[in-house]
Amino acid sequence: MQAMVYAAPGQIKLQDCPRPVIKDPGDAIVRVTHTTICGTDLHILKGDVPTATPGRILGHEGVGVIDSVGAAVTSFKPGDHVLISCVSACGTCGFCRKQMYSHCTTGGWILGNSIDGTQAEYVRTPHAEMSLYHIPEGANEEALVMLSDILPTGFECGVLNGKVQPGGSVAIVGSGPIGLAALLTAQFYSPGSIIMIDLDDSRLEIARRFGATETVNSSNGKAVEAVMALTDGAGVDTVIEAVGIPATFELCERLVAAGGVIANVGVHGKPASLHLEALWDRNIAITTRLVDTATIPMLFKTVAANKIDPTLLITHRFKLAEGEAAYNTFANAAETKALKVIIST
Amino acid sequence: MQAMVYAAPGQIKLQDCPRPVIKDPGDAIVRVTHTTICGTDLHILKGDVPTATPGRILGHEGVGVIDSVGAAVTSFKPGDHVLISCVSACGTCGFCRKQMYSHCTTGGWILGNSIDGTQAEYVRTPHAEMSLYHIPEGANEEALVMLSDILPTGFECGVLNGKVQPGGSVAIVGSGPIGLAALLTAQFYSPGSIIMIDLDDSRLEIARRFGATETVNSSNGKAVEAVMALTDGAGVDTVIEAVGIPATFELCERLVAAGGVIANVGVHGKPASLHLEALWDRNIAITTRLVDTATIPMLFKTVAANKIDPTLLITHRFKLAEGEAAYNTFANAAETKALKVIIST
Amino acid sequence: MQAMVYAAPGQIKLQDCPRPVIKDPGDAIVRVTHTTICGTDLHILKGDVPTATPGRILGHEGVGVIDSVGAAVTSFKPGDHVLISCVSACGTCGFCRKQMYSHCTTGGWILGNSIDGTQAEYVRTPHAEMSLYHIPEGANEEALVMLSDILPTGFECGVLNGKVQPGGSVAIVGSGPIGLAALLTAQFYSPGSIIMIDLDDSRLEIARRFGATETVNSSNGKAVEAVMALTDGAGVDTVIEAVGIPATFELCERLVAAGGVIANVGVHGKPASLHLEALWDRNIAITTRLVDTATIPMLFKTVAANKIDPTLLITHRFKLAEGEAAYNTFANAAETKALKVIIST
Amino acid sequence: MQAMVYAAPGQIKLQDCPRPVIKDPGDAIVRVTHTTICGTDLHILKGDVPTATPGRILGHEGVGVIDSVGAAVTSFKPGDHVLISCVSACGTCGFCRKQMYSHCTTGGWILGNSIDGTQAEYVRTPHAEMSLYHIPEGANEEALVMLSDILPTGFECGVLNGKVQPGGSVAIVGSGPIGLAALLTAQFYSPGSIIMIDLDDSRLEIARRFGATETVNSSNGKAVEAVMALTDGAGVDTVIEAVGIPATFELCERLVAAGGVIANVGVHGKPASLHLEALWDRNIAITTRLVDTATIPMLFKTVAANKIDPTLLITHRFKLAEGEAAYNTFANAAETKALKVIIST
Repeated sequence: MQAMVYAAPGQIKLQDCPRPVIKDPGDAIVRVTHTTICGTDLHILKGDVPTATPGRILGHEGVGVIDSVGAAVTSFKPGDHVLISCVSACGTCGFCRKQMYSHCTTGGWILGNSIDGTQAEYVRTPHAEMSLYHIPEGANEEALVMLSDILPTGFECGVLNGKVQPGGSVAIVGSGPIGLAALLTAQFYSPGSIIMIDLDDSRLEIARRFGATETVNSSNGKAVEAVMALTDGAGVDTVIEAVGIPATFELCERLVAAGGVIANVGVHGKPASLHLEALWDRNIAITTRLVDTATIPMLFKTVAANKIDPTLLITHRFKLAEGEAAYNTFANAAETKALKVIIST
Repeated sequence: MQAMVYAAPGQIKLQDCPRPVIKDPGDAIVRVTHTTICGTDLHILKGDVPTATPGRILGHEGVGVIDSVGAAVTSFKPGDHVLISCVSACGTCGFCRKQMYSHCTTGGWILGNSIDGTQAEYVRTPHAEMSLYHIPEGANEEALVMLSDILPTGFECGVLNGKVQPGGSVAIVGSGPIGLAALLTAQFYSPGSIIMIDLDDSRLEIARRFGATETVNSSNGKAVEAVMALTDGAGVDTVIEAVGIPATFELCERLVAAGGVIANVGVHGKPASLHLEALWDRNIAITTRLVDTATIPMLFKTVAANKIDPTLLITHRFKLAEGEAAYNTFANAAETKALKVIIST
Repeated sequence: MQAMVYAAPGQIKLQDCPRPVIKDPGDAIVRVTHTTICGTDLHILKGDVPTATPGRILGHEGVGVIDSVGAAVTSFKPGDHVLISCVSACGTCGFCRKQMYSHCTTGGWILGNSIDGTQAEYVRTPHAEMSLYHIPEGANEEALVMLSDILPTGFECGVLNGKVQPGGSVAIVGSGPIGLAALLTAQFYSPGSIIMIDLDDSRLEIARRFGATETVNSSNGKAVEAVMALTDGAGVDTVIEAVGIPATFELCERLVAAGGVIANVGVHGKPASLHLEALWDRNIAITTRLVDTATIPMLFKTVAANKIDPTLLITHRFKLAEGEAAYNTFANAAETKALKVIIST
Repeated sequence: MQAMVYAAPGQIKLQDCPRPVIKDPGDAIVRVTHTTICGTDLHILKGDVPTATPGRILGHEGVGVIDSVGAAVTSFKPGDHVLISCVSACGTCGFCRKQMYSHCTTGGWILGNSIDGTQAEYVRTPHAEMSLYHIPEGANEEALVMLSDILPTGFECGVLNGKVQPGGSVAIVGSGPIGLAALLTAQFYSPGSIIMIDLDDSRLEIARRFGATETVNSSNGKAVEAVMALTDGAGVDTVIEAVGIPATFELCERLVAAGGVIANVGVHGKPASLHLEALWDRNIAITTRLVDTATIPMLFKTVAANKIDPTLLITHRFKLAEGEAAYNTFANAAETKALKVIIST
């Protein structure tokens, strides 16, 4: 079969690979129909993820059709249309019992990382019972690819951890795909304002279309002043970090209101300076989370009820045979204006 | 001044009354500009509320302008435009410290009940610091009358107690003004479905306009079957009782899903039968609450952000001089289709 | 093998039965070392539980040693010492994902009910991964039998649902084994008072030994007055119903403080009268729950840390060959003063 | 009257000062009977607190007897015995309505800071209704001084923010008075283990007496290894920072388990390094809080119920005339082994 393979640092290649087979009674083999590329895939290509070694088929998002299942899989049968979670979960370990599936002792984010992933014609999904979801008939399957990772990430790590409330104020630092996913899902809770902050006016323009009530271009170094002006000097109840560098995290520290939350979504490679001398008496919380995808069932319902339109995030479409072009488009988002690219088989 | 007075059981009269004066350092005198009538006022007229005795000026909702304040009032000054909460709260007793303002040991629902109320040119409001709210310039003051009682009641007793969730299912039994207030505020949380249940098709038609996703006319005695058909037999996550009689409460018991909540909003005069033989193992909660109006600040923000339009509830407008006609209109809602009537001075 | 069999209404018999065998890859066969009798077993004997038919081996509590496991069981191997939960849980259905294991679509309380149970030399436990727990070496295994059902029931249905708080007030109606389990586990949260209410002075005497701060014998019909005297007329924050009849539930309605919780633990066969005319404005919650045993891991830790002594509940010990005597002793608790009886193989 | 006055940086002096008088209708004048010294007082002496200027009477803790009250004070009258909260709260501002009394817009920590404090024969307490608490007859008033600040600080900032749970694991970094206050109040929730970490063996010895299950002397730089050995490598559910320097905060970052909380209690003067590269995917929360003393009513009940013995924290007693000696003793705790010193008038 064809698959997108991490060939060497900096190199992604469409290659011919053997079709996966059932290894464990809890496995399923899924014929992938649509997948996508995540910022994390680009991190792997840079060599930043030691568990993902050259030769690995990338991808941890997607929808498809069940090809075969292991002996212990009872909820799925060949022909079922399924959504693949980016997180594999046994369901029974101590972490899974607390819905911290990301920390499953035999799962977590392994697809397209420590085992082969979804950017292929077929993928083996371990712990299928907990890690696949039935797609209702008539659903827009392409749209549902957004439920594999990006929407639950924005929702769980940003919106739920950030305790967005009706009438409350929200600031999101970073208007890339993940910040936009937080923006879309924050609106489930009817906040009074959502201030989007980024360096790029065209991204901020998108944010406005997606529901941001205010936008701040922080390139002038005056984002704090701008946000304080918008909040009568109080700061913001929920601040969502969706970039992953010290400068943006430290900006969040200056934006949060007394009693507020900084919900980190960004993937960080370096420490940030935590200004406890300013924050120790501010009654705030800072949260981190690797997406657990525990909210996929809830997100399914919000899509079915038209409370969110995941297709807003899809900007480009490719065939698997054009996978390298898809990577180029996604990697050059500043130029191509790509948010999420769909790769179909 | 003119005021609507509960003259005797069954009799509401426009009368000339003395203007109220400051009695306590925490009091304010408010010149009322807009007020309204509540279902509770009709209960008083029936003689059902022993604390409200003949001679009482009715009314516990309204907006107005500060006329004078007592020595201990520092947040308000003459000329300030204010919203009057239906609940007076000292802010310092044990209940107030827990935001259970409805149970304030020297307050609670006293306006238009044990002391004179807002259906008058002027009203004395005790505990003014905690019981009045500044109205921002440019706001639609008539709309804000809905924040005195009906919207916080639907929101606190129905939606918050009922734990409405994104994608979740909601059923509201009773499509009168208070059920509709729950319907409007439930949408803050983006539930997947809101099923409105009533005996009157014209009320259900209004519910559809206000955002109900499904309606069920229960006059055929088959509401349970209808709701089960809509929920694949699971029942409903949040069931809101907005009538106040045993039959509707017992209907709620049959609608609630395992793990769900029955949030009572209705004012009850009789016991209901609680079918513990069916519910003891269903992991449900039943909640009751007298509105605390603790969410008025939150509701102000949702109105300012256009997340809710309180004017939807306003169907009729009267001058205070037409107060008796206003009562007739409101009391004959089946015929007049009245939801809330505004009385302006 | 020998087993205690529900032979016919009113008849429990020690019989020779075939040893169970693995039927499903998720099963385990456990050699039972200690088990016990539950009030529910007596209900079955009365014919009150239609899913438990004559011929059934009873029992849903116990500890033992793994004899064999199905192909899909990876966490347990022959020789492992295990605790058996009274609830079998697949871990993957919608209810299990919310830790509502009691409502598992292919599990729940099935042991000794719809399938053969633990009052036998061997038992087949479905969904072994989620339904068995490793016993640490050196633990008092007899004591841990109390973690199969009675302690999680008192804790989850009574204490957690009842939101017991440091310094708070608690009343428990019913000083039988399950009320005492609530009493023991309520102390995890350091309430200020725990008032135990029962008709039997000897049970109340036990309650005092187990940590009740006050006891009220309700046989004079003045329990409400007594509790109000103990709480300055405020009523009780957490009221736990641990009997299961209308009279005791209705007593709870009169004991609960404004803002408090009635947490039902009792198994009810009839409706109770819910005095909504008195409760609609009291800001209370009423909760029901079938034990999920989701807290077994937490309870293991509290036992290990000596925060609770489960052996307090054990009053009698029998061999399996004496199983009929064990039933007699447990069924005649008023006379024998039995709380929990241990049956060892 | 006599009072302890911050005379100049480094200088605390017993001086004769005018008796305070009522300035505002919400004030009370309290004759102080017992007060104490806080670590914050030493910070003021170092010149670290700009709002506290030379000439200020220090002290924000204490009990006493009402001498006189302003016109708006109705809950207290001369002769009443009262506890003084370290935080003054109006009860009506936006922060007070959320029980964030520490951020009261006209209060917060002002006693012995921006206005004269309690280390005097008399003190003026603003917002008396919300900031004083009746002492029940027969209580140990000296013990209750611990409820002014240190116990609510340990409890709110450490234990409640840290979500201590029955059976859970707790680590407290810093075994000084505030760490010990967290240790005492953590036990309300029956955690499975409480690991106390400090550089000083004699403090750790005290911690063991106060209920620590394990102690770790971190002077060898191997605290992380020691804690991981005690927790099977998992880390700790609740980590409480009770020192206030970067090194100890960063130690907390290395101790926290996936899914756990770091609850900061320490007063920090410098930023710490937040190792987001290690924590971004650990599903943790970091919390900060200036004590709100919202739990004083709860703590009163736990003292009355003998769930905690505040006198454990009292090591030395002085008369106000010996105030300078009291300061010397408290400031040289390493030598004097002082925890809290009581100063009585």
